[in-house]
Amino acid sequence: MALEERVRELAEEVQPPDEGAVVRARERHLALTKPPGSLGRLEEIGARLAGMVGEVPPPVPENPAVVICAGDHGVLARGVSPWPQEVTAAMVGNFCAGGAAANAIARSVGARVSVLDVGVASELERHPLLRAAKKRAGTDDLSRGPAMGREDAARAVMSGAGIAGELIESGVDLLVPGDMGIANTTPAAALISAFTGRSPEETTGRGTGIDDETFELKVRVVDEALKLHEPDPSDPLGVLAALGGLEHAAIAGLILTSAVYGVPVVLDGVVSNSAALVARALAPDCVGYAIAGHLSVEPGAEAALEQLGLEPILDLRMRLGEGTGGLLAVPVVQAAARVLGEMATMKEMGIG
Amino acid sequence: MALEERVRELAEEVQPPDEGAVVRARERHLALTKPPGSLGRLEEIGARLAGMVGEVPPPVPENPAVVICAGDHGVLARGVSPWPQEVTAAMVGNFCAGGAAANAIARSVGARVSVLDVGVASELERHPLLRAAKKRAGTDDLSRGPAMGREDAARAVMSGAGIAGELIESGVDLLVPGDMGIANTTPAAALISAFTGRSPEETTGRGTGIDDETFELKVRVVDEALKLHEPDPSDPLGVLAALGGLEHAAIAGLILTSAVYGVPVVLDGVVSNSAALVARALAPDCVGYAIAGHLSVEPGAEAALEQLGLEPILDLRMRLGEGTGGLLAVPVVQAAARVLGEMATMKEMGIG
Repeated sequence: MALEERVRELAEEVQPPDEGAVVRARERHLALTKPPGSLGRLEEIGARLAGMVGEVPPPVPENPAVVICAGDHGVLARGVSPWPQEVTAAMVGNFCAGGAAANAIARSVGARVSVLDVGVASELERHPLLRAAKKRAGTDDLSRGPAMGREDAARAVMSGAGIAGELIESGVDLLVPGDMGIANTTPAAALISAFTGRSPEETTGRGTGIDDETFELKVRVVDEALKLHEPDPSDPLGVLAALGGLEHAAIAGLILTSAVYGVPVVLDGVVSNSAALVARALAPDCVGYAIAGHLSVEPGAEAALEQLGLEPILDLRMRLGEGTGGLLAVPVVQAAARVLGEMATMKEMGIG
Repeated sequence: MALEERVRELAEEVQPPDEGAVVRARERHLALTKPPGSLGRLEEIGARLAGMVGEVPPPVPENPAVVICAGDHGVLARGVSPWPQEVTAAMVGNFCAGGAAANAIARSVGARVSVLDVGVASELERHPLLRAAKKRAGTDDLSRGPAMGREDAARAVMSGAGIAGELIESGVDLLVPGDMGIANTTPAAALISAFTGRSPEETTGRGTGIDDETFELKVRVVDEALKLHEPDPSDPLGVLAALGGLEHAAIAGLILTSAVYGVPVVLDGVVSNSAALVARALAPDCVGYAIAGHLSVEPGAEAALEQLGLEPILDLRMRLGEGTGGLLAVPVVQAAARVLGEMATMKEMGIG
């Protein structure tokens, strides 16, 4: 129970964003040298940022970081993905070597990269960018039994919380959760169905690209898992243990910790979105610190974001994960802060 | 005729993008460490960039610039905007002082700012960021007669072409056209109707924010202008002279010159979009160098982008102009280039 208790304590620390700061930021927007509302959603992103950090104008988040949480999945044995499990480990090597899409995009937007091994099935070589936090070599097959124990789930949540806390303490002021794990859109779909009540047909997608036959199998596997576990959304750790992945759990922990610190989290695609539903079930106010970076083509992403009440910044028909879609939205979030902090007022310019 | 001849010569210099480079970039995307197509539209933006510069991978455009073209509009006398004409000049002062939204966003994405006075109604103080290219103090009322002469239109096109050429020669590798001009969404709507055949009801919007009565008047004014001039899309300079604004003309010139140099142009909202229709009518291949940065809430923007065959990167319900929406999309374009240039291949990583 010790680990579960720690997750509960973390969740209890989450406070809602500062609504007074949101209101003051909106008022400031009305005074700036532009017609009211003419920056559209950029204004609201800026106001939300002000609420997260409790300051108007909010400081520009100049030190973003992506944390790519990696794990493997027992459900791969059902054939839900054409990729072999070894690709998870190979891609961790690629992240460490700097050659993945997430690395290229992180460099482009000035974000640092960390990788969290929270359950990759094979042993990984040490690397300065890689944090080892593995207590089990992937999950079990969620369609035949629980994906993991409650303790495992709680430990993975605390692993994500731990790395998030350390990064924030070291100066990171915006976090993007990333994910890597062959077959991890299957647990994502199951989690989204569990928390939104949507059918597996509505939450299951083609992941990185599967044929019709594999897709039908994947929907069936998610359906079987839901029927087997009858998940209870009021017991988020139970849902996570039954249906989740270790990286989903770690991302939930990262989201909770960011909320505790008042640091914005820019969500990536369907795995992040499903983890945010877990985090929300643990601490509803944590959603106040989350920004939807993009809309994944996975249908579960749209279902999850709707439930979270978040509108994505980008919709570029991406479906890679790794944090790529979240990273791409970071400059928009930075610009939203800068507009509030650096624009002249109508009064200063003698207009209006 | 000398100036018209120069515009024609400029248009004739535009060559289509390098389709071979586009194909090679798409092939390279298939070899990178990600499932094919999983970066969605980011992949296509990268491939288009390769075609524009004729290199695979395309170099990352690290030196973007926004050129805010400013002019005034005789049609303001009809009451199509609640803002007084003096705001155009005041905002030019704001751009030079660094306090406008375009400045804040330009700093955020690392773009330099230039302002082109191509027809502001009042005399402007000199400033290092301000290029004076004014031959007339705004346009005439397009609903009562031609907005300007053909020579004026051609001269404004060449002003935009000139500043674009100088910036590119000085190292700028990506251009964002911006606009400032009270009432300039009225000529934008008229131009879009002229080039797309859409009715004024479909192309006219509320600009920076007008009430129902003003909106109805604005639609009527655009309708009157179209009936008065019966614009002929096969005579783009004639359409521009009859219905355009001086900043619309300058932006058309900027787009043409960028295309001649093989430099990408990231379009902003409805004024840029209408200017791109002019540029396209002069040199259809120039659209191959244009990227739609965002979708403005102005209905004409969607009509114009559809005609141009461009899909916007962002849709944040913005309607400010100044280049703000184009600037916000620059990091996505940079990331698209970086992904092609910096990702490892499957072969290098021993995957697949």
